[in-house]
Amino acid sequence: MKILVYGAGAIGSVFGGFLSDGGHDVTLLGRRWHMERIEEDGLFISGIWGTKIVDNLKVATDFSDVKEDFDLILVTVKSYDTEKAGQDIKKILKEDTLVMNLQNGLGNSETLLKYIPEDRLITGRVIFGVEIEPGMVEITVSADDTVLGTLGSVPGTTLMRIVDIFSRAEIPCRTANDISKYLWGKTLYNCALNPLATLLEVPYGFLAENEYTIRIMDGVIDEIYEVGGKLGVEFDPDTPEEYKRVFYSRLIPVTAEHHASMLQDIRRGKKTEIDALCGAIVRYGEELNVKTPYNSFLTDLIKAKEILAINC
Amino acid sequence: MKILVYGAGAIGSVFGGFLSDGGHDVTLLGRRWHMERIEEDGLFISGIWGTKIVDNLKVATDFSDVKEDFDLILVTVKSYDTEKAGQDIKKILKEDTLVMNLQNGLGNSETLLKYIPEDRLITGRVIFGVEIEPGMVEITVSADDTVLGTLGSVPGTTLMRIVDIFSRAEIPCRTANDISKYLWGKTLYNCALNPLATLLEVPYGFLAENEYTIRIMDGVIDEIYEVGGKLGVEFDPDTPEEYKRVFYSRLIPVTAEHHASMLQDIRRGKKTEIDALCGAIVRYGEELNVKTPYNSFLTDLIKAKEILAINC
Repeated sequence: MKILVYGAGAIGSVFGGFLSDGGHDVTLLGRRWHMERIEEDGLFISGIWGTKIVDNLKVATDFSDVKEDFDLILVTVKSYDTEKAGQDIKKILKEDTLVMNLQNGLGNSETLLKYIPEDRLITGRVIFGVEIEPGMVEITVSADDTVLGTLGSVPGTTLMRIVDIFSRAEIPCRTANDISKYLWGKTLYNCALNPLATLLEVPYGFLAENEYTIRIMDGVIDEIYEVGGKLGVEFDPDTPEEYKRVFYSRLIPVTAEHHASMLQDIRRGKKTEIDALCGAIVRYGEELNVKTPYNSFLTDLIKAKEILAINC
Repeated sequence: MKILVYGAGAIGSVFGGFLSDGGHDVTLLGRRWHMERIEEDGLFISGIWGTKIVDNLKVATDFSDVKEDFDLILVTVKSYDTEKAGQDIKKILKEDTLVMNLQNGLGNSETLLKYIPEDRLITGRVIFGVEIEPGMVEITVSADDTVLGTLGSVPGTTLMRIVDIFSRAEIPCRTANDISKYLWGKTLYNCALNPLATLLEVPYGFLAENEYTIRIMDGVIDEIYEVGGKLGVEFDPDTPEEYKRVFYSRLIPVTAEHHASMLQDIRRGKKTEIDALCGAIVRYGEELNVKTPYNSFLTDLIKAKEILAINC
């Protein structure tokens, strides 16, 4: 297959690297500091899925340099670049090109559906962690397979075919009928932990060790269950109380030492993905007339931190 | 008059110093680093109300060393020490001793009323700023007179007599029938600005310059008006909308460069007065069944910051 990775940062490079290694014709579109090293020395992949050097990747640093037709386009940009990604991809869409959204957070597939036919947009939930340096990615942790489904009307046979291609390329992967459940599950975890750990500049473990941050995270979780419930999301577990039990007893302890990716963004003077996390909950809440003060408060505090970080 | 200042930090030292200079017999009960310098060299007062050295102050660093009878006891400890202050003062209360609460925030006079008869507890609203160093206080800014009133049943004639004593000692001062209005007015300002400026480590001006922190402060103000309204507080101005207009157009601009005192507490590894500010709003809200998510969120974040600060 001819595959484009639109936004080849940490996650995009892993998918692109494995697919290329699996025999596909892969182009990475990404930042110059990363693409130049890949062009010179190949992509070095290390970590829990083994070590390899992938040296037949094509690279581009500007969308206008991407001229080919693609069978599959992976969208792995940050959430705040989704709109532009949709506009760009629409221009190079062949009649049978498939697009796969592997982004973090909520609302990204909805944005892409403005530009991509609904029977051709696959939505994935990615839940492994990657560290990136120029020309190198290291897969440090993985909580589950990548799960692929559709928020539009991609046929099940198409999803099965893509899962087969990914699996042959050694990417742990399966299909799901209810991709929303997986997206919202990851969002719950991210909304409760990531912004709060960023504001207080603490590892996740601290947040479960005192009544104050527990009360804040409980508020965030309750609001997401309420909003998601009204949108028809079938959560797993299906009540916020049961989720909290799992969250505090199992999910946080295994990532107790983890620092928020959002804090890294802020420290580097970059924008964060808060709009696709707590910010998305606030927008859904406004549409549904559900009050979401905790998610709103976190969104606004992170937005204020972004202003400070970008001006520094 | 024989006067005890219970908690002679920045504010308490100013009152004690002026009253001593005005001819009264004043004992300061305070921290060793400050009391020892006053005992050796006197108290040096500077700033907008003039410069003087007060050299006839008595000092104590432990309540058990305070043996005398007093006509007037000023309570100027931090809010989290109010309960202990009430218990101590009860032990040395003569039949006609007056107690005056000059603390920051809400709920302190209610705590003292558990120990002090209601016809003898004066409540004051102090709104000048003081910098403190060992043996020295500098009055840097004053927004209004100190206002004295009662949340109990202190006779008006008593209040007038005390205002006369303070005025003769050159402390700008007047009585008020509605001391609650003044206390809640100061609390509005403090709750909206102090914790948020502490969390983001910014001067007050920044908070009025972007939509995100404005939305948070609006949420805090709305909740305080709702809770206070149900408690019968007559706010000035009487609507949150009108308050916000004054707040953003006049109150913040004149203190735009100001840094939160709470941030100084956190940086020194000390507790803050959050429980008498946003925390008091949350407690009143719980009693009244009014939701106060913004004040609750700020309280919990500051409490988490305290844990981090004290453990560092």
